[in-house]
Amino acid sequence: MKVTLVAKTEFLPPAHIPWEPEGCGGDDLHEMAGRLCYLSWNRPNPKTATNEAYLRNIIRQGHLSVLEHSSATFLIEDVSRSLTLELIRHRHLSYSQVSQRYCDESEAEVVYPPAADYEEAMAIAEVQDLAREAYQAIVENLRAKGLPRKQAREAARAVLPNATATKLVVTGNMRAWRDMLGKRYHVAADAEIRALATELLRQLRDIAPHSFADFPEEPFS
Amino acid sequence: MKVTLVAKTEFLPPAHIPWEPEGCGGDDLHEMAGRLCYLSWNRPNPKTATNEAYLRNIIRQGHLSVLEHSSATFLIEDVSRSLTLELIRHRHLSYSQVSQRYCDESEAEVVYPPAADYEEAMAIAEVQDLAREAYQAIVENLRAKGLPRKQAREAARAVLPNATATKLVVTGNMRAWRDMLGKRYHVAADAEIRALATELLRQLRDIAPHSFADFPEEPFS
Amino acid sequence: MKVTLVAKTEFLPPAHIPWEPEGCGGDDLHEMAGRLCYLSWNRPNPKTATNEAYLRNIIRQGHLSVLEHSSATFLIEDVSRSLTLELIRHRHLSYSQVSQRYCDESEAEVVYPPAADYEEAMAIAEVQDLAREAYQAIVENLRAKGLPRKQAREAARAVLPNATATKLVVTGNMRAWRDMLGKRYHVAADAEIRALATELLRQLRDIAPHSFADFPEEPFS
Amino acid sequence: MKVTLVAKTEFLPPAHIPWEPEGCGGDDLHEMAGRLCYLSWNRPNPKTATNEAYLRNIIRQGHLSVLEHSSATFLIEDVSRSLTLELIRHRHLSYSQVSQRYCDESEAEVVYPPAADYEEAMAIAEVQDLAREAYQAIVENLRAKGLPRKQAREAARAVLPNATATKLVVTGNMRAWRDMLGKRYHVAADAEIRALATELLRQLRDIAPHSFADFPEEPFS
Repeated sequence: MKVTLVAKTEFLPPAHIPWEPEGCGGDDLHEMAGRLCYLSWNRPNPKTATNEAYLRNIIRQGHLSVLEHSSATFLIEDVSRSLTLELIRHRHLSYSQVSQRYCDESEAEVVYPPAADYEEAMAIAEVQDLAREAYQAIVENLRAKGLPRKQAREAARAVLPNATATKLVVTGNMRAWRDMLGKRYHVAADAEIRALATELLRQLRDIAPHSFADFPEEPFS
Repeated sequence: MKVTLVAKTEFLPPAHIPWEPEGCGGDDLHEMAGRLCYLSWNRPNPKTATNEAYLRNIIRQGHLSVLEHSSATFLIEDVSRSLTLELIRHRHLSYSQVSQRYCDESEAEVVYPPAADYEEAMAIAEVQDLAREAYQAIVENLRAKGLPRKQAREAARAVLPNATATKLVVTGNMRAWRDMLGKRYHVAADAEIRALATELLRQLRDIAPHSFADFPEEPFS
Repeated sequence: MKVTLVAKTEFLPPAHIPWEPEGCGGDDLHEMAGRLCYLSWNRPNPKTATNEAYLRNIIRQGHLSVLEHSSATFLIEDVSRSLTLELIRHRHLSYSQVSQRYCDESEAEVVYPPAADYEEAMAIAEVQDLAREAYQAIVENLRAKGLPRKQAREAARAVLPNATATKLVVTGNMRAWRDMLGKRYHVAADAEIRALATELLRQLRDIAPHSFADFPEEPFS
Repeated sequence: MKVTLVAKTEFLPPAHIPWEPEGCGGDDLHEMAGRLCYLSWNRPNPKTATNEAYLRNIIRQGHLSVLEHSSATFLIEDVSRSLTLELIRHRHLSYSQVSQRYCDESEAEVVYPPAADYEEAMAIAEVQDLAREAYQAIVENLRAKGLPRKQAREAARAVLPNATATKLVVTGNMRAWRDMLGKRYHVAADAEIRALATELLRQLRDIAPHSFADFPEEPFS
């Protein structure tokens, strides 16, 4: 599994607002949006004078819509197709995924589930080998019958296992990421997607630490 | 593939509105919502006096939000897991799908892609046989090592092919269904999901004919 | 304020599923969708054998997506325009509202806020009278200058007060209604929208009691 | 009306992808997401070799989901409350707006509609004056009766006219902005929101020119 941050929100503080950001990027933007709602620019309350304290209070109050103003985009590689069927259920994120209909999958790699040791990996690899063979045979057969390449591949992918590796670009605002993490950074989640959620949280904390300050060090239980 | 309508919107016309519905169910509700926006209850315009003509005009103008007021729910069975990965990309629909983590898939059926003839089906069935065997072996192995059933199954599903059959309940309002059909009731769509879209459109026309009157008899091209 | 249920989901139980609904309408559909995910048709667990108990458990687990399968539509009348600016922030609901650009508002009614007694109502009525006069004068002026009726009205509405009465049709699934009620059926909410939320909850309990069984008898605090 | 860009997406091109961005920021990210779907990194097709040509083709094909990966945030000031009731209907944008319940509106400014000349502006100003007076009287009355400040203000705002000025922070991805502009950058739109849409489009073209290259120089008709 490889997770690369490929985009994030750049905050451009407006000069005409009587408020100075702390230099926290997206977290500053969240604070600015929150302060605008109440026109409370002058930090009257010492309890919410820092960005960290302000967002802690916002999150405690459930005023999560201000966390929608900044986003992060990740390139996610070497995860299984079955992971993506779970991931894509999160409808507030945006996705662009490698198409199994367009791309040649005759050399498709697999991603072993975290619980797999040597023996289970061997069983998966054996299925992968047969699936690749069948994939190539079906593509050739259907091409020989005159089907266009895309239609041959879309039929042949029928044999590819859930473990087949895929790549995707995923974008979400901080509220949407919190929502996804709330479900997947959880002991009850599938082991592979929990590992992804753990890594995403680690990287999200780098760019918007105060928007995830209430998340625990270990997955929810 | 089996598609069963399991719920639809029942319109309860309010007695105090100076307008009589035609008896078109959800399509009447769409019209009522449209007429409310302009308080035009008395059908002043002969060109939009019938429900059919009213909705034709609404759709032509792109005033599609009124089509969000009625919904239809389908139980969809015997479709492939790979179809559902495409379907679930439509974020305005609501989904409840059989979980491969919870359910025993040791007797999992497959759905052959429409392009598969005897030879391709045999290749798929061969992969299915090996996948079932591997699935059972992995579940047994991991259970023997002390993993809970759910975690053993979530790892073992790694071998299941894209063609594995699944079931799901899908709900959408008429605008969301139009949006899905616009992409999948299309010659460029995957053959299996195009067949599903064709069947969905046929059943949607039964319950909300005037909301789909502009759809062509053959898939978009 | 007048709130009329104008549509709800009609459940059509599929004959081929080995499970009998209790006769709870949309709540049965929620249960069916939940049971499908685990293929647990035979009510093995006595703790979740009734619809009420099943949905209580689903809600406790936060598996709220199954509540998206049934919907309710309300015609809401005699609420203020300012209420609707708050209501429309709930993005999972669907709206059709009387247009102040199209409709003649020269006789526009007002909705007094719950806190207004005689004296405050008089102050509001005085503004309303002047606003109506100004509205009519602006429409006449702009019409005399050659503006189309719609453009004259869209400019003239500038003077109409927040209290101006409006009507709208609102549709939502039970999860979306729960989300809206969580914010507006609350002591911190605006008094008028809290009254609306209280009435909506009362009517929603009639059609989907088990989807709202965890809501308190008095607004959240 | 004052529109200030306060945030935009910063693209961080991943070093391990065999493709060089042109330096178009968010538009590069859209291209990268599109190319990932087909693993077509090497610009094989001269017709889509530039970012401009690539996105033109993507938009023509309706593959708009790749435009969801970059966002822009605007601080919008000196627009009317009635404009925001139209704006907020766009459910794919994110909003933080000055609260009329929390903030003191006794000196509330108004925004004159574009069609208003001297005479109409005078009529609006007269309503504004009376509304301010009534606002203050109602707040004082209700405070004297013991109501908390917020509850007094939420009732008193009943008299504020549609023209009352407001401020808000709005975030959207490029697909969401295109959707909003498709409706509001239009001759049939309200004059004030059309002016806002025109200015938004001008600024969006600065940061993502190829995502709006198909938009006309004059509003849609």
